[in-house]
Amino acid sequence: MLNKLCIVGVGLIGGSVASAARKRRLCSQIVALGRQEDRENLQRAKQLGIVDAFYYDVGKAVQDADCIVIATPVGAIEAVLAELKKHWSETAVYTDAGSTKCSVIAAAKKVFGEVPANFIPAHPIAGSENSGVDAANADLFQDKRLIITPLPNNSLQALTMVQQFWEQLGASVASMQADHHDAVLAATSHIPHILAYCLVEMLGKKDEQVEIFQYAAGGFKDFTRIASSDPTMWRDICLANSQEIIPMLQELQDRLEGMVQMLENRDSRKLFELFTYANKARRRLLDQIEQ
Amino acid sequence: MLNKLCIVGVGLIGGSVASAARKRRLCSQIVALGRQEDRENLQRAKQLGIVDAFYYDVGKAVQDADCIVIATPVGAIEAVLAELKKHWSETAVYTDAGSTKCSVIAAAKKVFGEVPANFIPAHPIAGSENSGVDAANADLFQDKRLIITPLPNNSLQALTMVQQFWEQLGASVASMQADHHDAVLAATSHIPHILAYCLVEMLGKKDEQVEIFQYAAGGFKDFTRIASSDPTMWRDICLANSQEIIPMLQELQDRLEGMVQMLENRDSRKLFELFTYANKARRRLLDQIEQ
Repeated sequence: MLNKLCIVGVGLIGGSVASAARKRRLCSQIVALGRQEDRENLQRAKQLGIVDAFYYDVGKAVQDADCIVIATPVGAIEAVLAELKKHWSETAVYTDAGSTKCSVIAAAKKVFGEVPANFIPAHPIAGSENSGVDAANADLFQDKRLIITPLPNNSLQALTMVQQFWEQLGASVASMQADHHDAVLAATSHIPHILAYCLVEMLGKKDEQVEIFQYAAGGFKDFTRIASSDPTMWRDICLANSQEIIPMLQELQDRLEGMVQMLENRDSRKLFELFTYANKARRRLLDQIEQ
Repeated sequence: MLNKLCIVGVGLIGGSVASAARKRRLCSQIVALGRQEDRENLQRAKQLGIVDAFYYDVGKAVQDADCIVIATPVGAIEAVLAELKKHWSETAVYTDAGSTKCSVIAAAKKVFGEVPANFIPAHPIAGSENSGVDAANADLFQDKRLIITPLPNNSLQALTMVQQFWEQLGASVASMQADHHDAVLAATSHIPHILAYCLVEMLGKKDEQVEIFQYAAGGFKDFTRIASSDPTMWRDICLANSQEIIPMLQELQDRLEGMVQMLENRDSRKLFELFTYANKARRRLLDQIEQ
């Protein structure tokens, strides 16, 4: 059992880590570190009993903490690490919940020269289009995958402790290289989010002239759910993983151009083949998810 | 109450029309008209009690029917109308459930010279990614929107009867011009389906080399749900509404190009504005759907 868990950024993910740790009695004390401008959200976290206390002062927040989880948008992680560095503990373990991993590792290298032995980068593949501590859910990580991207200089002890920590929150932990993580997540998460945002933005502008959303069915609602995600978080992810995202966006532009060609040529065979292939590929996806 | 309802094509939609009519006791007899190659599906419809009988012969199927619903993929509607013409009844009413309306009207004009006074084109905005009569659902149209696109030469009596028929199945009926229908549905339904198909096809090809679907989260599953839709149905819709779909696909390509530019220029302000705008637009969408 941990003595003190410190969460940096108690939004949806940070709040869920705290709630899950509390529910599973993993630690005797849970505190949050946040910014003055997040005062309301921090107060709400305390009011909901998700954290025992919150601090704006990093020294007070991390004092005697044995596990520190960084759950801010990825664009803020470098600044957070720079703050944490001043009070870095060799005996505590550190992890994060950032959706991109190369950028987090680059941030750690920039601040520390190399990634500290006791900082294990992690990404829980779980979330919601809702944000803020009110959306926190003690079972958010239950039976969800979590990817850790450890580095050669990580200590085995820290690695084991962080892995166990996430597993105790319910996650199924896999390990992979950071660049592979970023390529896979660009495909399965970042590109879908960008597509949903772009489509809703495009249709939103049309809807300002002619109401079209009222004729949207359930399929459209599901398809665009992720366009309700937090803009700050997704701005940061897109910038942090642009080297993986850009080529895939270009590939997708080519795909759409191919579709235009098929429609202009009225190539019903190719259309049927493409839709049939996608239909089967999604079946493969479901088989993998439902395993 | 109707005497005999004839459904042409008892898949998801046709089967749901039959089931809904049965549940609401709208008619004393329900029959299906189908093709020899759909024998298994037709037998299944009878076995499930969704229809009382099925025919391959159009004359027998429509004999004494007072309502005929065409629920085939839109690409088949011209051939269906040509078959129905041989036994056309002036006293029955005809409607369809095609997802595109200009193409259905063009098909009717081709077969009859002009749209028959007693054929009222309709589109229930309801569906599922599942297909076939096993996916039929007596409540599929309950509280769902349905758009009719009547023409000046439609008889008021047929219009009233068809509208009441769909309303009795639970739908909320609105009337609009066929071309407006096709533009709106291209935006809210056809483009999302094409995007989901194209993305899943693109990722499916990657997944053949490196398994990526196993790291997909719930958001991806929802986003791609519509890529499991029936390929024949969607091939037909894309071809039937290509004049609305092509410009929107080109607009979307420009949007993706704009996104690439923002990422290359690391324009965090523009990214944040776009995501924030989309986020608010989706809120507007939800407010309209949840009304």
